[in-house]
Formats: sequence, C-alpha cells, structure tokens
Amino acid sequence: MICKIEKQSGTAFTLKKGQQLKVIDPMGEQVSDMVLFNAQDPREKLSSGKTLDFQEKILIGKGDFLWSNRCNKMMEILEDTNGRNDFLLAPCSPETFEIMYGNNDYHPSCFENLSKNLKKFEIEPDDIPTAFNIFMNVQWDQDGNLSVEPPLSKAGDYLLFEAKMDLLIGITACSAEDSNNGSFKPIHYEIL
Amino acid sequence: MICKIEKQSGTAFTLKKGQQLKVIDPMGEQVSDMVLFNAQDPREKLSSGKTLDFQEKILIGKGDFLWSNRCNKMMEILEDTNGRNDFLLAPCSPETFEIMYGNNDYHPSCFENLSKNLKKFEIEPDDIPTAFNIFMNVQWDQDGNLSVEPPLSKAGDYLLFEAKMDLLIGITACSAEDSNNGSFKPIHYEIL
Repeated sequence: MICKIEKQSGTAFTLKKGQQLKVIDPMGEQVSDMVLFNAQDPREKLSSGKTLDFQEKILIGKGDFLWSNRCNKMMEILEDTNGRNDFLLAPCSPETFEIMYGNNDYHPSCFENLSKNLKKFEIEPDDIPTAFNIFMNVQWDQDGNLSVEPPLSKAGDYLLFEAKMDLLIGITACSAEDSNNGSFKPIHYEIL
Repeated sequence: MICKIEKQSGTAFTLKKGQQLKVIDPMGEQVSDMVLFNAQDPREKLSSGKTLDFQEKILIGKGDFLWSNRCNKMMEILEDTNGRNDFLLAPCSPETFEIMYGNNDYHPSCFENLSKNLKKFEIEPDDIPTAFNIFMNVQWDQDGNLSVEPPLSKAGDYLLFEAKMDLLIGITACSAEDSNNGSFKPIHYEIL
C-alpha cells in the first residue's frame, strides 16, 4: 500500500529488521528528510559522520549503508533511481527561514515535522540528528562552497531501503522553497 | 599558559562566553577533533548540519561560526592560519580501526578520548556529536568521493576561537594514522 506524506508535512513509523521501505518522489523535484533511531534503544541513531566515514563519500546511494552513532548498520540502500542523496545540510527549521531568508513569520519546516511526528516515540527535538537528505541536490565546488539546486529527481524516482535493525523512522516532504525549486509536493512511501 | 594534549589523547574543560581559545598544531601535520556543549544545558551541542547550513560551505574557517543543534552560535573563528577544517568525517573510534582497517587490537581513538574526558561533565558516549575536525585534510571530487590526506598544517599553525556562550569543550590530538600522516603528535591550546 502506498502511503502519502502531504506537502510540507511528515510522518513517523516503525520498521522491523528485514522489512523494506520504498521512498518515492511522485511528481519529481521534491526532497525528503529521513532520520532513524534504534527502536529498542533510541539513543542509538543515524550518524552523518559515521556514514560518510564508512562509505568514504558524500553522495550515498545504491549499495551503501546508513550507519548509526554506535557504528552499526541501520539501513541498506538496495535501489536508487536518482543518485543524489546526502547528509550535508540540516533539516530546514524555523531558524533556517529566519536566519537564512529573513522570514520571521511562521513557516512549516522539516525539523518541526520530524519533531511533531517523533514525539509519540518520546524522541525530543534535541535528539534529532542531521537527516539523510533524499533527492536533495546540493552541489559543491573545490573550495567547498555549497549551493542548493533544484532536485534532479523525476516523477516516480525512488530509493529502496532494507532495515538492518528494528527502526523508528521520521520522514518528511520538504517544506523549504530552496530544496524543491519553489514547489511544495508530497512524498510517497511503501513498506514492503 | 600553553597547555599540552599528549599524542593520542584528549582533554575537556569549560570556556566562558567571551573567552578565547587558541588551538595550535605545534609540530605540523596533526589533527584535532573538537566537540562543544552548552555548559548550562549540554543537550544543546555542536551541529555539523547546522554549521554547514548557515555557513554554506564545507570548509569552516576565519570569520565563520560553529552552530548548535538549536541554531545558536557557539564559537566564532577569529583567526585560522591553515584554512582546512571540516565536519565531514566522524571522530575515529575503535570501530573505525576495526571496520575500515581490519585492526581488531586495541587502538586509541578520538572517540574514546572525547568520551573519557567528557565523562566528568556527565556527557555520555551517545551524546558525542560529529566533531569539528581542525587541521584535517579531507579532499573530495565532483562525484563526492572522499579521501583523507596528510594535513597541510605547518608547525605553529593555529585557530583562534571566541566562545559565544558558556561552553563545555572536548578536544583531542588525533589517534588515527590516516589523519596525521602516520605520525602521532601533540596538540597545544591556550585559553585567553
């Protein structure tokens, strides 16, 4: 069954070890932020630094693993039809819009959508790690300057993950104009 | 007074808002991993994702700030004579040597040296974030492949930080052969 994450929103759910999760960009040019926690002990969680360490690259895709702060494999990426996913930038938050875009009004954000949905699993906002940015098109130059470009994902592009431990998962349809070329779109997912 | 962090070791101390910290590579080609916590509430801590977000670059140096998971400025970098510091890879840990180098024997590591020294401030190993890698020479290509090269730092190179809040600081002289060109050296620091 395909589940729908409405634009500028998020969800959280459990995934058992061995289950597969398909994350789909149904319309193209949309980003999804994903965070992972060990369902048995949520102090073990997704680590950007450990994943870059063990995979020895910035772009994480097919054949790679997502690693925890305790150096365990949390997910394997079995398929990736787009190829541009990374850990560089944090989930957009109210402060992203305030500090980077001078927007002091309310703006939905991935951080809020992760916090709100993970609350039922007793995950506090402070516990949310740097997310895995699915379909996010961050470009860099040799000097390390970063820019966020429109996603390269086409309608129907997807990543297929397999859980390597029992997981709590938080996931969003990104709320930031910069990440999805100014259009707010849903993200779909399927548990297999 | 210049304080010395012996090779393959670490230390932890407090720094008051407005105080300055100088981190020095006394011999050249050595790396130092640094983590920061809000001294009043250590659940607020250094964030790689937020720092890359707000500074919009991978290399963090003079004029840049180190940001927290709550989007506050923790440190300002007032001076940086080397220019190559980043947040890409996690502090080396026992698992780094086991998984990446097939070394199953005991090996000192930055993670152990941070954990051990931060214990007195009730910081648990699970709470240690991806560190700021001072003097670390991580190179990347356009495809995002990463390699760790010998540091470019020369004897006497330093970074000068100013605390923007009361801080708990954990800092090391790196224990990994790959980070410091196979030589284990001290790191010096000075609180001004």
